[in-house]
Amino acid sequence: MAIIGVGLIGGSLGLLARRKHLVKTVIGYGKKRGELQRAIAAGAIDRYYLSLSKAVEDADLVVLATPVGTFEKLCRSIAPYLKSGAIVTDVGSTKGAWASRMASILPQGVSFVGGHPIAGRERSGIEASTAGLFDGHYCILTPTPETPPHALKKMRLFWEVLGCTVVEMDPHEHDRIMAASSHLPHLLAYALMDTLCHLTLESDKPVRFSAGGLRDFTRVAASSPEMWRDIFLSNGENVVRMVDLYIEGLEHLKKKICANDGDGLLEILSRARLIRQKVAS
Amino acid sequence: MAIIGVGLIGGSLGLLARRKHLVKTVIGYGKKRGELQRAIAAGAIDRYYLSLSKAVEDADLVVLATPVGTFEKLCRSIAPYLKSGAIVTDVGSTKGAWASRMASILPQGVSFVGGHPIAGRERSGIEASTAGLFDGHYCILTPTPETPPHALKKMRLFWEVLGCTVVEMDPHEHDRIMAASSHLPHLLAYALMDTLCHLTLESDKPVRFSAGGLRDFTRVAASSPEMWRDIFLSNGENVVRMVDLYIEGLEHLKKKICANDGDGLLEILSRARLIRQKVAS
Repeated sequence: MAIIGVGLIGGSLGLLARRKHLVKTVIGYGKKRGELQRAIAAGAIDRYYLSLSKAVEDADLVVLATPVGTFEKLCRSIAPYLKSGAIVTDVGSTKGAWASRMASILPQGVSFVGGHPIAGRERSGIEASTAGLFDGHYCILTPTPETPPHALKKMRLFWEVLGCTVVEMDPHEHDRIMAASSHLPHLLAYALMDTLCHLTLESDKPVRFSAGGLRDFTRVAASSPEMWRDIFLSNGENVVRMVDLYIEGLEHLKKKICANDGDGLLEILSRARLIRQKVAS
Repeated sequence: MAIIGVGLIGGSLGLLARRKHLVKTVIGYGKKRGELQRAIAAGAIDRYYLSLSKAVEDADLVVLATPVGTFEKLCRSIAPYLKSGAIVTDVGSTKGAWASRMASILPQGVSFVGGHPIAGRERSGIEASTAGLFDGHYCILTPTPETPPHALKKMRLFWEVLGCTVVEMDPHEHDRIMAASSHLPHLLAYALMDTLCHLTLESDKPVRFSAGGLRDFTRVAASSPEMWRDIFLSNGENVVRMVDLYIEGLEHLKKKICANDGDGLLEILSRARLIRQKVAS
């Protein structure tokens, strides 16, 4: 198995796959030698290459674990070197646009199976990797009509052995759902940090005297900026639609406050608990 | 000391004041006998009254610990029964509008000192009370020109003994700061729950396949709806100003996404970390 990018997800994947003896050898590819050496020390990979072609040429399974914006270019680069019968998969947070072009980029005889383990941490990088990262989480696979059934079956088993509950979904449906459940909350948290950045130019008091509410937001907005830039851009249409819907809701709440409508406000605030009960805890 | 409302904050206050022998007796007042009995069992109060006048008539210190929307009416009700020399204080999250009217509502010889311990939990009610709730947190006191220095000094000592770092602030400044650091984040979380409520009428998938980001938001939106209704309404002007500022920022982010401006987006997302470093952890 070759893992392209040994950060939080790639590193955790290697760690667990090696521990479970899921593959014979885990090869790491990255641009920074230091990070790859730390990945070896952490037990996440057996060895590494700084050359893409060398990293993938013997691999039965290639996992893309860099920010999603790099996937298409990466696949064009590795295409000539892939073994026939190899499977290319990814762990990215968006699927619709770029994943539908994979079948035409990869050579005949190489399968693509989109994958998204719903797991993450606020910290990033190999140091944050942990073998327990996926345990009990969903992994969404996004097959298309071009996906060979045997490749899909292999990837399903792969993630199940790693401790995930595997769900299959249309790539575009995946992106619509993630826009609501993950991309919107992260964008809102980043936007709040930005608003506070502007406010704190005048005084640091809003931040100094903050309590739990703000801290939860800062945690959400602490993930890798590069990763989230790519997610927002590659799922732009859905994200923007969610932002518009959200602003509409916010304006509605604002109107209730301006009208001093306590009952109307209480009704909306009380409904929030319904969602909490549904959220996987 | 009489505590009006023995929920999370009132209960924790009683628990700690009794443990530290800060006052001779802690009297609880509430509307629900069951809750008051549980407050006795929890060690938060010595005894209780279901009558407001009886609860406050012997008290040197009366603490308002109900939702802020009730404070003004409560003070009009207790005013005739208060001892001369008594101090009335509160633990509410807003101060500007209502607190400035206190001096004219309370009788001569009774002092008012606004107080706001920056502490809370997502759970509410006496069962969530804990003696460690205030430890290491700020407590903001909001004196006005009418506040007698001896009363202010007493309340400062009171909160310091309870483990707080005491800061004094103009009531209106307090409300402007809290609108940014606490009220806006909570309103944003409630608005997200509302957006998801509408979406989940069609499918529960956005909530079912959610990860950490959404869970942090649901936690923020899990506090008492009655408490937050009162906070939003009593600090409406500042909250609405913050919402407008926030929407402006969100529209700015949206524009970057629509324009596929990766560099501009990365710049904003990266700035978020600056705030995180400043937030009290």
